Amino acid sequence: MILLDGKIAAEAMKKDIAREVARWTCEWGRRPHLAAILVGDNPASQTYVRNKENDCRQVGMDSSLYRLSSTISQEGLIECVRTINEDPDIDGLIVQLPLPDHLDEQEIIGAIDPSKDVDGFHPVNVGCMVLGLPSFVSATPAGIVDLLQYYNIPTQGKECVIIGRSNIVGKPLANLLSRKGQGGDCTVTLCHSRTIDLPKICRRANIIVAALGQPGFLKANMVKEGAVVIDVGISRVEDKTTKSGFRLAGDVDFVQVAPRCSHITPVPGGVGPMTRLSLLKNTLQAAIERKLNVKRIRL
Amino acid sequence: MILLDGKIAAEAMKKDIAREVARWTCEWGRRPHLAAILVGDNPASQTYVRNKENDCRQVGMDSSLYRLSSTISQEGLIECVRTINEDPDIDGLIVQLPLPDHLDEQEIIGAIDPSKDVDGFHPVNVGCMVLGLPSFVSATPAGIVDLLQYYNIPTQGKECVIIGRSNIVGKPLANLLSRKGQGGDCTVTLCHSRTIDLPKICRRANIIVAALGQPGFLKANMVKEGAVVIDVGISRVEDKTTKSGFRLAGDVDFVQVAPRCSHITPVPGGVGPMTRLSLLKNTLQAAIERKLNVKRIRL
Repeated sequence: MILLDGKIAAEAMKKDIAREVARWTCEWGRRPHLAAILVGDNPASQTYVRNKENDCRQVGMDSSLYRLSSTISQEGLIECVRTINEDPDIDGLIVQLPLPDHLDEQEIIGAIDPSKDVDGFHPVNVGCMVLGLPSFVSATPAGIVDLLQYYNIPTQGKECVIIGRSNIVGKPLANLLSRKGQGGDCTVTLCHSRTIDLPKICRRANIIVAALGQPGFLKANMVKEGAVVIDVGISRVEDKTTKSGFRLAGDVDFVQVAPRCSHITPVPGGVGPMTRLSLLKNTLQAAIERKLNVKRIRL
Repeated sequence: MILLDGKIAAEAMKKDIAREVARWTCEWGRRPHLAAILVGDNPASQTYVRNKENDCRQVGMDSSLYRLSSTISQEGLIECVRTINEDPDIDGLIVQLPLPDHLDEQEIIGAIDPSKDVDGFHPVNVGCMVLGLPSFVSATPAGIVDLLQYYNIPTQGKECVIIGRSNIVGKPLANLLSRKGQGGDCTVTLCHSRTIDLPKICRRANIIVAALGQPGFLKANMVKEGAVVIDVGISRVEDKTTKSGFRLAGDVDFVQVAPRCSHITPVPGGVGPMTRLSLLKNTLQAAIERKLNVKRIRL
């Protein structure tokens, strides 16, 4: 059993990105620049945003954080998005999710300039990804494809079962892995809460992606001997043996499942670092396309 | 074995549409209006466009045909699209495909106002469909879902295998059938040219959709007893016994497969009429939303 170590893969790929960033910076006289909007003071969101800022620093990118009050109005937040859209010195923009309940997430995402939408959440980017057109691919699915490629795991013709049909992981990943070409060409089955006899379906898979957000959900009896298992889940579960009183758990029962696998991702340290890496890749790509004045689509 | 008769289903649903169109027309003082652009003189395209005009007439909608020379430039065609985009009396616009080789189809589709894109080919509509947001769903996938519903065929929890990953059928249909809710909730496997052991995978399916464009491809040994079979293919094959010297053939070997099925679509007269119906539904929807000034997404 080989551990798919996202930290190692991401660190290696960060070096390539840092090199590209340095070249771009020399050529254009400023660094690629990622802006993040953080609404309110959700502790997990604060950690995520801080990590993203650190990542930018590590590869030589600029980052800006727009902290907005949790009571901001829909219009106020859209106004902030528009200001950043129009700022010629900002290449990428993310709005840290989730937003407070009174805000309409989809409308906010739709207000982001698709050419700065480095999270790949805008419908135009989702649509272009599905159609095989140039697009920003959302960070977790892109990171999973990169991780498989980093470890030279073939995908062509493999049966892949994805558990969970979320807009940010399951659906885009199903589309990505079944696309024609390198890193794709899987025969993908997308499973969800209405799927009947999930264990049987999972046992067909050469590659299983668990992305449903239920700690320890994937058990040994759902995994074919020699399968590749990707664990996207990351939940806090109570654990009195730790100092903090909790630990991070994935959707895979790692202790049970790992011995059956050819490859498996740990949690933490598997998909997470690859997700963060994808955001850097997308921001660099946005910066390059901005300078080259690439028009993806006429809107 | 029950024949899924697209003609009967479409005629029945057309009556509902005609009633809605009449009401809309009374209320707003003009009829819903579909514009079609036809470039060149491909005989199949001419037939398709003529059929669409007849369909409009039948339900009380206006239609306009813009016939453009096969030598028109990319810029000239985009100019025509823009003119129609800005015409307040036109609700829906389709550009009949395929276009001559010197034209960039994707750029033309991207130039259509998404709120008039009743073919549902614009990346914004594809993206919104995938994300479960309001959108125009492309005609063939939407027609297939309607046909299943018309014949009360349950989809929830059913295993569905789709053969063919085209942008206009396989990919959108996979997304549509795996969506949450009525007419969706299938466990979908999307198969394609790189899929290994396709017959085995097809035999798992409660619902099989053949959409690869190879006449007679789906044989009896690929179909589980009692499956529902949807045939999207429609190819001209040589047939010396007919007057014209050819006949229309689907992707399913009907004679072999039909006895094993619980339900099957004929070709012609199965998916085709439902596809045409979807275009009418989308045009009516576009007209309603135009008058109600529904803004799906801020662009």
